[in-house]
This record gives sequence, structure tokens and C-alpha cells, in this order.
Amino acid sequence: MRNIRLTVEYDGTDFHGFQRQSRLRTVQGVLEACFSQVLGEPIRVIGAGRTDAGVHAAGQVVNFATSRPVPIDKLTGVLNQALPRDVKVQSCEEVAPDFHARRCARSRMYRYTIVERLVPSPLLGRFAFVTPGRLSVPRMRAAARPLVGRRDFWALQGGGAETTTTVRTLLRLACRREGEWVTITAEADSFLYRMVRLIAGALIAVGRGEMEPGQLAAAVADRDKSVLPAPAPACGLCLVRVSY
Amino acid sequence: MRNIRLTVEYDGTDFHGFQRQSRLRTVQGVLEACFSQVLGEPIRVIGAGRTDAGVHAAGQVVNFATSRPVPIDKLTGVLNQALPRDVKVQSCEEVAPDFHARRCARSRMYRYTIVERLVPSPLLGRFAFVTPGRLSVPRMRAAARPLVGRRDFWALQGGGAETTTTVRTLLRLACRREGEWVTITAEADSFLYRMVRLIAGALIAVGRGEMEPGQLAAAVADRDKSVLPAPAPACGLCLVRVSY
Repeated sequence: MRNIRLTVEYDGTDFHGFQRQSRLRTVQGVLEACFSQVLGEPIRVIGAGRTDAGVHAAGQVVNFATSRPVPIDKLTGVLNQALPRDVKVQSCEEVAPDFHARRCARSRMYRYTIVERLVPSPLLGRFAFVTPGRLSVPRMRAAARPLVGRRDFWALQGGGAETTTTVRTLLRLACRREGEWVTITAEADSFLYRMVRLIAGALIAVGRGEMEPGQLAAAVADRDKSVLPAPAPACGLCLVRVSY
Repeated sequence: MRNIRLTVEYDGTDFHGFQRQSRLRTVQGVLEACFSQVLGEPIRVIGAGRTDAGVHAAGQVVNFATSRPVPIDKLTGVLNQALPRDVKVQSCEEVAPDFHARRCARSRMYRYTIVERLVPSPLLGRFAFVTPGRLSVPRMRAAARPLVGRRDFWALQGGGAETTTTVRTLLRLACRREGEWVTITAEADSFLYRMVRLIAGALIAVGRGEMEPGQLAAAVADRDKSVLPAPAPACGLCLVRVSY
């Protein structure tokens, strides 16, 4: 069997998340159905990150096993012909049999995008969280800085998750402004369920002055979810890159 | 009756263009249905530009007459609550009774956006034309320059249009590169049916080396449609601004 690694881009708006679910349109479900049809054998794909419903990806990584001898330089085009326009393969390569998109990943990088606008924007609102008022990026940075490092992020795990450990290493958490655009970039070995959106929600609250910068790190240290606001909307989040 | 002027933004993907059509979802149809429902009286809107199916707008201008005394500073919010997420009012003001969004417009500005990518992009392809290969922007500029001015643009009118005259004043036609992004900005007193997309299609062909820069102006001067390529795809086009 050949082991194929793909980089996949998708507009998450019309997907019920990455992970396969019966009767719901998911990224994994669409990839598996299309690849199985094109290759004429049942295909199971493994993804690096299980993005939530409505979350986008510019650089999701998946792998799958196939016995078919399709030349690797033709594969991207062949698969894209079968895929709908909201999910497309960006590149592919043949990798060693032991490559596993999820288990081998060293880190995931997400970007959360905010646009400051008084009214909703049909052109920007699909891929960003549009919100009125001006955010203080210096305050957001002050809240973000003490989160970086290896720690127990239990407070930043969404409800309904099942994990053996909530210890993660947050490698980077940066906030940046360009005009009316504010972006939050988060990189970690891996993220807990809803963790990036919970961080973004808290940083937005800090940026608005609804929460003090120190409260976010304190909530994590105290394992106290009560002070944290709701997760920021899914539309603003994008899985940018997975590193191996 | 009060005369209300609105600036409207929309994602044209799921609309059959601006102009009302029975049984098809159009921008004008959705605006009229929502406004009539909110204001409790039949509303007819007049738009500055009749954008094609799939064409977007950041700054479409419309006006309508109403007898209702809704305060003008509340109107944007009230109307947006009723509108779907792919079309939203950006601002509104009360204007003189003789203001007419189409007849009073001095010029319309459109932007055509191209992204150079080897593979389709679900994240960029909704609001841009994604195409492989590198375009020569200097060649595109050379083709664009002689088009500016007052002339008969008959050759750049799409089929099926009914107009008394095909003379228009093209005020500006600029091509610009930023990394893998190429934009064409076109401003005119008004445009013929499909004119911006026909210009964009020709400039892209020139940028690819499939057409000589001089051929575009020659086609216009000779009223010769035979040398012109098909209009560029609607997804790349956006009505940016209407000036009064």
C-alpha cells in the first residue's frame, strides 16, 4: 500500500466540522467519499486537526493508504476534479508507511481573524469575526504573554471533550493589528477541544476592556472556567499550518 | 414620502444578480421583500448598478421611498436584522426627493481581483478569480491605457443588451500587483452590459501573452468582437463605489 500525504484547504462554512458523522456533511466525509469514488476502493483519511463546525483550513494535513498506481504528480488534479469547490487539495506527496497525519504532527498553528466594523459585512464576515468597537491590542498581548509555555489548560477546554490529559505546550500566542483587522496567531503541540476559540473569546473580552489582562492566566492557573467568556465564533478561525 | 439612500454590501455568490426576477433570488428582490416586511408597506428599491449573477458589491447604492417615521439612525440596524447574512446595509441617510440612485450617479467603480495559484483555493476563490501562471502587469497596463477616455465601447458590450448608445467615458483603468494578487480597477460614468468582465477577460489574455496589448484598443476602435476572449468569471468582480 502507498501512503499519501495531502495538504487540504477548505471553507468550513457549510461543513459540520472535520470529523466524519453519519448523515452530516463533514470534511472527512466528503474527502473519503470523493477519494473512494475516484480511486475505486474504500479510502479512509486521517486528519491532523479536528476542526469544529464552521472553522476553515488553509493547511490541514491528511494522509490515506491506497493500492492504486496513480502517478503522484497527477493526483492533486484528479482528486480536485471530484471535490466540491469548498474543499480542495493544495499539494500531495508519497510518504513513508509510518507517516500518520495526527500522531506525527509536532505542532498546529491557527489564526483567528477579527474585523472592527459597526455593521455586519457579507464580504468579510465569512472568514472573520466582524465586531463593532476598537480592541486594545496591547491589552490583548499582556493577557496572551503569560499563557505561553507548558501548562495544564483544563480551564480552556470546551465542554463535552474526552481527553486523558489537559497539559499542552503553547508555543506562540501573538496579537497583531493592521488597520481595522486584528489577528490572533496560536501555535501549540496540540490544542484542547475549543481551546483556540476560548482563548480568542477571552482576548477579545480583554481587548474590549470587559476583562483584565491578568484574569486569563489566573483562570488557567486556578482551573477556573467561571470568569471566561464564551468561545469566539467559528467563522473567524482557520487552521493555517501543521508542522512535522 | 421620505427618500432613503442606502449603501449596501453583498456576497453575490448565491444571488441571480441585482435585478428583480420572478422566482429567482436576486439582491433587489431580497431587499424589497425584507424592507416591505419590516416597514409594513410595499417598498420598491432603485439600484445604482445592475450587477450580474455572482458579482459582489462593497458599495452598491440604492434608494427607496417610505412613509414610515423610523428614525434614520435606527434604520440600518432595523433593516439588517431582517436581511440574510449575504446582504447587509452599511449606512443610510435621508436625501432630497429628487435623488435617484441610478440616474444621479456620476460614476461607478469596479474592482476585478485575480489570484495566481496552481490549484483552486476554497478560501480565496469566492471573491477572486484563481488562475495558474504569472500575468504580466506591464503588458496589461499597456493594453489598458489607450482605452481610457470617451469612446464607443460597442465591442465591449455583452450579447443580449439593449442600449440606445454604446458611448461611455472610461475615467480610469488601472492594473496593480501585490504578491500573487493582481487587481484591475475600472471607473466609468456607466458601464455597458458585461463590459468590466469583458475588459478583465481581455487584460488577463494580454497578461498571459495570448493577446497583444494593442489588440484590445484596436478591437474597440474597429468595433470587432471577434478577437476578444470570453468575459472573466463573475466571482472576481466587485462594485466598489458609486460617486454622486
